[in-house]
Amino acid sequence: MDNFYFQNPCKIIFGKNTILKIGPEIKKYGYSKVLLIAGQGSIKKNRVYDQTIKSLKEAKIEWVEVWGVQPNPVLSKVREAIRLAWKEKPEAILAVGGGSVIDSAKAVSAGYYLDDIWQAFEGKVQIEKALPIFTILTLSATASEMNQWAVISNEQERKKWAIGAGCLIPQVSIIDPSVQTTLPWHQTVNGAIDGLSHLMENYFLGRDEETSMALCEALMRSIIISTDQLQRAPEDYNARSNLVWAITMAHNGVSAIGLKGGDWSAHRIEHGISAIHPEVAHGEGLAVVFPAWILYMHKSNPKTFQRWAETVWEARNVFSAVKKMRTKYRKWRAPIWLNDLKINQKEIKQIVKNVMQFKNLGVLKRLTKKDVEEILKLARAVE
Amino acid sequence: MDNFYFQNPCKIIFGKNTILKIGPEIKKYGYSKVLLIAGQGSIKKNRVYDQTIKSLKEAKIEWVEVWGVQPNPVLSKVREAIRLAWKEKPEAILAVGGGSVIDSAKAVSAGYYLDDIWQAFEGKVQIEKALPIFTILTLSATASEMNQWAVISNEQERKKWAIGAGCLIPQVSIIDPSVQTTLPWHQTVNGAIDGLSHLMENYFLGRDEETSMALCEALMRSIIISTDQLQRAPEDYNARSNLVWAITMAHNGVSAIGLKGGDWSAHRIEHGISAIHPEVAHGEGLAVVFPAWILYMHKSNPKTFQRWAETVWEARNVFSAVKKMRTKYRKWRAPIWLNDLKINQKEIKQIVKNVMQFKNLGVLKRLTKKDVEEILKLARAVE
Repeated sequence: MDNFYFQNPCKIIFGKNTILKIGPEIKKYGYSKVLLIAGQGSIKKNRVYDQTIKSLKEAKIEWVEVWGVQPNPVLSKVREAIRLAWKEKPEAILAVGGGSVIDSAKAVSAGYYLDDIWQAFEGKVQIEKALPIFTILTLSATASEMNQWAVISNEQERKKWAIGAGCLIPQVSIIDPSVQTTLPWHQTVNGAIDGLSHLMENYFLGRDEETSMALCEALMRSIIISTDQLQRAPEDYNARSNLVWAITMAHNGVSAIGLKGGDWSAHRIEHGISAIHPEVAHGEGLAVVFPAWILYMHKSNPKTFQRWAETVWEARNVFSAVKKMRTKYRKWRAPIWLNDLKINQKEIKQIVKNVMQFKNLGVLKRLTKKDVEEILKLARAVE
Repeated sequence: MDNFYFQNPCKIIFGKNTILKIGPEIKKYGYSKVLLIAGQGSIKKNRVYDQTIKSLKEAKIEWVEVWGVQPNPVLSKVREAIRLAWKEKPEAILAVGGGSVIDSAKAVSAGYYLDDIWQAFEGKVQIEKALPIFTILTLSATASEMNQWAVISNEQERKKWAIGAGCLIPQVSIIDPSVQTTLPWHQTVNGAIDGLSHLMENYFLGRDEETSMALCEALMRSIIISTDQLQRAPEDYNARSNLVWAITMAHNGVSAIGLKGGDWSAHRIEHGISAIHPEVAHGEGLAVVFPAWILYMHKSNPKTFQRWAETVWEARNVFSAVKKMRTKYRKWRAPIWLNDLKINQKEIKQIVKNVMQFKNLGVLKRLTKKDVEEILKLARAVE
């Protein structure tokens, strides 16, 4: 096993009726003014916004609001929020929403101290400092509520890139699974597939890291079991709780320990798709890319892919496991082919070009343009 | 799933040649004088002490030493160290050793601010404050290196009791698995059995906490696999790393999430044994008590015990699983019967009396004197 560092000081407050704790928590850390970042209004429908505001008021926390973060969150909105923060001088950021909102909040919290936050995405500037971040999670997928990562799309340059820094780990995240009961089914599924994909990015680099590999397998199975349960009984609070917690654990660093930082090339290929097709949700893109990626890559680490086939899918080999995986995704009503995403042949070239902007694509195998083309070929419908 | 809080800010530095990082880490936190607590000298044989001192010197950290913490660490030694701390006024505590040393360090760090640390063990005083703790782990068992717990024996009153508080979680723990290569085999086994037992205390309260239950199962299997590998190849660094990390994960809070705080009655029965027989290592006592406890308790939560039998031991029922467990422990050369610990019939009464000092013994089932007697009966040799 490789040497590793691990530290994740984020405090998780998990369960029913926990949103009202946000005010007192922010107070406890000594802050009295926050910038509240939110999405497109769903939190006004499910009472999350009301409870948040009530809690802030009772704790005498001042706040300023930024609305309108969209799925595949964009740099222009981040810049708008940073300008507001410069004017309003909040002591902390409060993200109320899903991964897009939290990722935007992270970019704002780091960007507050930088001339141009995009420089950090380009790797030209180090993030050393950020405003403290608090989150109320309303959609489980990215695990951004308990990790150091944020992904933002630069819509002008068509780049969907990431930043990561210890100071971007939220101080406190409130996860009330019951607020996710009313989510449209496809958003639950996208979150589940994002969680599974995070686990696979790390897992497939594994060789003899028995402990972390076994944890990844346990989490993958738990996500599959809980999603199946929710499809049968959408209001099952217990299934929702298990799914939500497994998705956080899938990318909060714990299950990745010793696994060499993961591969992330499937994620990057997906980012190439949603950079060009922003209407494609990240989970949808991953549902299409990952099975193809596995079929292309499994010979690079055959023992681990075989182990995954057996332990996660009870399949006799990788081909059979991918088939089961696609059948499961289809049963969850996720897209599984590029055609399902309405991506045509011409656009594939654009996607490949976009993906190849990344230097050093892939760890298990360094991917060339040709490799990415082949992977995308395997994502074309064979049904 | 029940609501929960989770936070564990401990920084783990894991791997070969990591001990030399201790000085710079302590410095980074701004401390310049530590109280170094150690055991009975094994760290002088395996070069851990030399490297620690070298690192402290290079970072210009002053230190004072307390030696002589023994397995089943005692209150008198803790008090001796607290008196020294009052005199020397260190800014932090550095524990170099196994769980006994780290637990003693925690009691010292809290006791530094109290009139009488034992009052905290008795639950008469709250621990609100403690000196910051740094650790270099030399024997994996208790997970004390990454949790808030400490167990100390009051030798006069024959009480082996625990304290727990957020401020007792170490700031930084260094885990170099390679220093455990030279451990006597029975110490490795005791650590593995302690880790398995921590997982079981939490797991058996589980009912539908799929995610955490699956994590516990994964860790149990990993401990069993890695211990078997080490028995075949004692110098296998990778097996040691997996074992060591699984043991930390077994009781750092992560795998216990949502599992209602665990039961801990088997641990308390063991503490009754080692309070009276201090020469019995905690892991040895657990090896004897836990199989008996399972046989007595399994009807209180039959689905979960059955699931454990199948997933951890590939057994068709609990009886068969306990048989496999005892066979495995025997293969590891651990004691499995009270007779192996040389405990006679007369002493069992004393043990029961000692155990019954605890109020509210057991969560899965509130245990009476009669229950404890029956459990200990099931721990008498039937071979």
